[in-house]
Amino acid sequence: MRRRDSASYGKLPSRSRCTRCRKRAVVHLPSHNANFCDSCFVFFFKNAVKRALKLFPVKRDTPIMVAVSGGKDSLAAWLVLEELGFKTLGVHIDLGIPEFSQASRRAVESFAKSRALGYRVYSIVDLLGYSLPEIYKRTNRMVCAVCGTVKRQLLNRIAFQEGFRVVATGHNLDDEASRLLGNIVRHREQYLEKSYPYLPSIGKKIPARIKPLFRVEADEIRIYCQIKGIDYFSGTCPFSRGATSHIFFEALNFLEAEMPGTKRDFLFHFVRNHTPPETDINYKTCSKCGYPSYSDLCSLCSLKERLGNQGD
Amino acid sequence: MRRRDSASYGKLPSRSRCTRCRKRAVVHLPSHNANFCDSCFVFFFKNAVKRALKLFPVKRDTPIMVAVSGGKDSLAAWLVLEELGFKTLGVHIDLGIPEFSQASRRAVESFAKSRALGYRVYSIVDLLGYSLPEIYKRTNRMVCAVCGTVKRQLLNRIAFQEGFRVVATGHNLDDEASRLLGNIVRHREQYLEKSYPYLPSIGKKIPARIKPLFRVEADEIRIYCQIKGIDYFSGTCPFSRGATSHIFFEALNFLEAEMPGTKRDFLFHFVRNHTPPETDINYKTCSKCGYPSYSDLCSLCSLKERLGNQGD
Repeated sequence: MRRRDSASYGKLPSRSRCTRCRKRAVVHLPSHNANFCDSCFVFFFKNAVKRALKLFPVKRDTPIMVAVSGGKDSLAAWLVLEELGFKTLGVHIDLGIPEFSQASRRAVESFAKSRALGYRVYSIVDLLGYSLPEIYKRTNRMVCAVCGTVKRQLLNRIAFQEGFRVVATGHNLDDEASRLLGNIVRHREQYLEKSYPYLPSIGKKIPARIKPLFRVEADEIRIYCQIKGIDYFSGTCPFSRGATSHIFFEALNFLEAEMPGTKRDFLFHFVRNHTPPETDINYKTCSKCGYPSYSDLCSLCSLKERLGNQGD
Repeated sequence: MRRRDSASYGKLPSRSRCTRCRKRAVVHLPSHNANFCDSCFVFFFKNAVKRALKLFPVKRDTPIMVAVSGGKDSLAAWLVLEELGFKTLGVHIDLGIPEFSQASRRAVESFAKSRALGYRVYSIVDLLGYSLPEIYKRTNRMVCAVCGTVKRQLLNRIAFQEGFRVVATGHNLDDEASRLLGNIVRHREQYLEKSYPYLPSIGKKIPARIKPLFRVEADEIRIYCQIKGIDYFSGTCPFSRGATSHIFFEALNFLEAEMPGTKRDFLFHFVRNHTPPETDINYKTCSKCGYPSYSDLCSLCSLKERLGNQGD
């Protein structure tokens, strides 16, 4: 992934021309074997999102709630959905991680205000009674898994309360391909079908999930953010150190560097050969909150119970 | 993979004890979380091969033809099969690659003579009329793929002529796991079932194939060779540079270093959940040589034809 004008994208061979308009190229995409000028890159990027959206049964007039962390992926997803004409609401969950969460929240607020986009900020402390560092102290479970569950469950509840039937997240091609690789290598067949970039709604309380950026690579999103002047927060969560997802991410980037196009080819083949997971699974209802659940108590109520039992 | 007494296996924590007999350990196996002394390592190694053999419907009195290249894997496979009481014949195919093939052949001959094991050396020039470098010059195909096909086909014919119903090769856990990863990532579903370590015989002309070392890692084979004094040839084929198999090998080694046990877990799960490929596929018969074939001409006769058409 190389870009002429910026140190962060390396060097392009001099006099490279845009593959689309033949003007001077500023971006080189090895996995596409293509060079682009700024405006043709944005065209290419939007087009990749449009192709992704074709896979989801979501109409153009369906309002979309966008889960925004303040990082490059979710802000780019939000902007491109807006530019494609969707009615959106950005929802940010403040996890209460010192410094990291403040910086994340600031990135969301300044992005939304400068573009006059509607957004809401929810605090995990208000919703659950505990910040993520407090949850980490009180549980023995892997914190990344707990955080993922909490965010998914809270976003479902917020979407229901705010009246949204569709939630978009910023997961990109790298995220999805490395998750797929991890699930295959560690043979977690039960998670494989959830690797599909569209998860249908389960009743009125669980919105559909879409991943509009599943066809674009992390580096392509960085370029899009730079061209569009998106001032995202690039910090890494202090709790994510040593997460196994990073390991598969690195392994896949190694394969990609040796054989450009491997990552997209691997993920897209999976998507082509699978369908969204079935929705007719016999979900139970959580005996405490009434939300759909795999067991008598949903994962959020079960976590709350465990947190409460720990005392102060 | 660490061994106290030898620079090649790194360092063991001092005073480490053998996991099996509590004597001083000389080998540390991170993926097993175990330390071994020399003799318990050999016990462990043989046991892994015995477990592998249980998967193959091969009786203890069945004579086995062992395909030996002169490298660590095939010589170790040959020795361990002999020590387990199998009647074996080592068969080496001299590929006619200057220096590399001479060194390979010398390793096989000196190994067999010093242990009084029966062996035969066949030359690709005698069998096909061309050395591998000549085949490389005359074909445009990937040379590793051509070499693999030629060796497989010639070994089948030699086994039939020598009266063997089973051919063993030295493929190890690393080979098999990285091939499996490559076939999955590049979605070569048609090769997936051939990733099984036992391929049944197809009629009397195609022997069964077994991979007795599929449960042991390359580093474990190096240790076994060192303990057993196997003087193998460790050169790399000059034609294999840039082979994609190396790339998946490296990616898997990266995952293994980060998460010891990943490689074996990945491969063994596949083996547990699959069965040997079916043999009732409607094979054709090669119109030229009469051997089973996927098309009218088998891959060896088709290669011969191409080589002949190229002229001299």
